[in-house]
Amino acid sequence: MKLLEEKITAEGKVLPGNILKVDGFLNHRIDVAFVMQLGEELARRFKGSGVNKVLTIEASGIAVATAAAFYLDVPLVFAKKHKSDNISDNVYSAGAHSFTHGNDYTAVVSKEYLSAGDVVLIVDDFLAQGSALSCMINIVEQAGATVAGCASIIEKGYQGGGDQLRAKGIRVESLAIIESMEAGNIVYRPDEGEKA
Amino acid sequence: MKLLEEKITAEGKVLPGNILKVDGFLNHRIDVAFVMQLGEELARRFKGSGVNKVLTIEASGIAVATAAAFYLDVPLVFAKKHKSDNISDNVYSAGAHSFTHGNDYTAVVSKEYLSAGDVVLIVDDFLAQGSALSCMINIVEQAGATVAGCASIIEKGYQGGGDQLRAKGIRVESLAIIESMEAGNIVYRPDEGEKA
Repeated sequence: MKLLEEKITAEGKVLPGNILKVDGFLNHRIDVAFVMQLGEELARRFKGSGVNKVLTIEASGIAVATAAAFYLDVPLVFAKKHKSDNISDNVYSAGAHSFTHGNDYTAVVSKEYLSAGDVVLIVDDFLAQGSALSCMINIVEQAGATVAGCASIIEKGYQGGGDQLRAKGIRVESLAIIESMEAGNIVYRPDEGEKA
Repeated sequence: MKLLEEKITAEGKVLPGNILKVDGFLNHRIDVAFVMQLGEELARRFKGSGVNKVLTIEASGIAVATAAAFYLDVPLVFAKKHKSDNISDNVYSAGAHSFTHGNDYTAVVSKEYLSAGDVVLIVDDFLAQGSALSCMINIVEQAGATVAGCASIIEKGYQGGGDQLRAKGIRVESLAIIESMEAGNIVYRPDEGEKA
């Protein structure tokens, strides 16, 4: 999505350790008008896929997932992160690793809110190794529901998580895919989804 | 807000230990179309207050705060919860206690995203003792910014946190204020804000 690539290039900061800081508009201060446009674009890409539910995980994906769900006119479920393995019986749960925070967590979703028959769009703000998305796919599968696809705002293409999911036949749409980055030079993968 | 009171009465569950479970539409599964209406109503109540920023805290307030910020046409900042006191110098931070989770946490906001001159609407999904709101008020004051007011979706009026803030001269708007509840009978405080 051209508009997003321009925003990342203009406002994002590439920090040592391969970190892209976009917390000025995406995940600490949120440019809500802009994030609503991102959600609208995700909804456009998945319209006609029969999506009846959006799934994300707390916390920084919630705003854009709310926007996507709004434009798809479906409810949003957000998975909660638990530090412990002490999980009740009435939830689906799966483990994941956060490379950003360097910790493991367990994501849980109440069995009340995900069921066989649901067609789920999984949304997150970042896609790098794909750990959070894989964890949510696992949860959707536990429910016997269908994954319509995964959507991320910014994919670090060079970390391979998105392409691994695509290789498994899962539809993955990212609004900007970064092939390489260093301060002052971010290279994006051509966006095939924008005009599709 | 009549619509919200009806929804709580119809879909909320009063559980032992004075717990109101509304995670079917507000804080686990989110009825996004409805939450956007809640945000629009909050925006209507604070229009003309000069608000240029919405502040909330992760995670369950983010959806409704996104909606309020969208209709106010201002950015949203969400405070992050840290478990440790090991906080860097470039953030504002304040402690709070979660009665729901029975733990203490430190809320942090980057100094980049809150400054003197900001007029801030503080939004959260629940207001009981007022610990989260007081913590965010503290952060806004550290920045030298102005609190336009606090907004919550559901206030447990009988726990007193909202009225304590009002007694300090802070404008507090809650879309539903519960005066008492037991299974099958939730009593609401008359809503003076709806027609104002």
